[in-house]
Amino acid sequence: MRISELASETAVPVATIKYYLREGLLHDGVLTSATQASYDDSHARKLRLIRALVVGAGLSIAEARELLDGVDSPPSSGHDLLGIAHHALAGPVDEGVDTSEIDALLDSWGWSRENCDVAGKAAVAEALAGVRSAGFELPSGMLETYAEAMHEVATAEIAGVPTDSEEAAVRYVVLGTVLVEPLLLALRRLAQQSASFERFGERPLR
Amino acid sequence: MRISELASETAVPVATIKYYLREGLLHDGVLTSATQASYDDSHARKLRLIRALVVGAGLSIAEARELLDGVDSPPSSGHDLLGIAHHALAGPVDEGVDTSEIDALLDSWGWSRENCDVAGKAAVAEALAGVRSAGFELPSGMLETYAEAMHEVATAEIAGVPTDSEEAAVRYVVLGTVLVEPLLLALRRLAQQSASFERFGERPLR
Repeated sequence: MRISELASETAVPVATIKYYLREGLLHDGVLTSATQASYDDSHARKLRLIRALVVGAGLSIAEARELLDGVDSPPSSGHDLLGIAHHALAGPVDEGVDTSEIDALLDSWGWSRENCDVAGKAAVAEALAGVRSAGFELPSGMLETYAEAMHEVATAEIAGVPTDSEEAAVRYVVLGTVLVEPLLLALRRLAQQSASFERFGERPLR
Repeated sequence: MRISELASETAVPVATIKYYLREGLLHDGVLTSATQASYDDSHARKLRLIRALVVGAGLSIAEARELLDGVDSPPSSGHDLLGIAHHALAGPVDEGVDTSEIDALLDSWGWSRENCDVAGKAAVAEALAGVRSAGFELPSGMLETYAEAMHEVATAEIAGVPTDSEEAAVRYVVLGTVLVEPLLLALRRLAQQSASFERFGERPLR
């Protein structure tokens, strides 16, 4: 199909498609003349994926490219798969971040501290520091509640990694990490509304 | 203290402080001359809060202002508190979004569908659509796992809302909703790394 047809099918403007082609996110079509190329279903699928990453998950073009490169060139170990997703999502790592508090927490939760990377620990340390610097104090036991909930989520996610093909495994891990984030946060807000009504109803707070 | 001292104490550049003053995020100091003002601890606390929202949680200036206005002028009902936080965080709501699938899910989970707002349901619907349009299929039962985990989180959070003062309740709900998001996502990634090692170790995927 022509680029205008690809645009109609995916609801992505032609100018945007050309931008993704220039940036190397979308693979080239087959040239049919000096100025025209032909596209197929693989382009439509890839375009939907790019839009989900860039518009849905809010990734930058550079982050999306790193993720898509990971999907196209899988590493050899199941454990390494996560590295691709987490690396593309992590900001620059401040190597000087003190992760000793996080290590102690991981030990107390029974998580494998040796197999959690510095970027991941630094992200938790920074998120905790952000909460505290805002003068917000987590109620006693709340951090453990968060950790337990995320442990349940992650265990189910990792158990669901398909092992029948490497491509399927990479797609699942890389995309699942990114695409599910907005879903989790949106579910938390709905759950808060539901729980808030159960506790407070329409009664004034005091 | 002078603005330069406020900058030193909070590690926020003077130009940034002046920007927050102009934008109305930070309250004015007391004028000590035609060109100088004096600031106190309330400015330092507020600045740390602004930084946590803008830098830590990634809010825009307009979103941060809406949240801070909510913290300064609390509503009268505990349930309404969430509205402030969620409204500031939600993008523009597409009233045409079909939330019937979400309503059916809420019923099946036993959540109070009447007390979840359209913006919250639309956010879940859009997040689900984003996952699907990327060609990513959630494994069977995974959506329920996510919902259960977020239900546990939200129930603990709402149970922890302090009721001794309205100001404390508002701070807790409004800031907790926003500031904890990066923490939850960072914990999920660490939990994935830990769970991934337990399942795959250093063995290649196949």
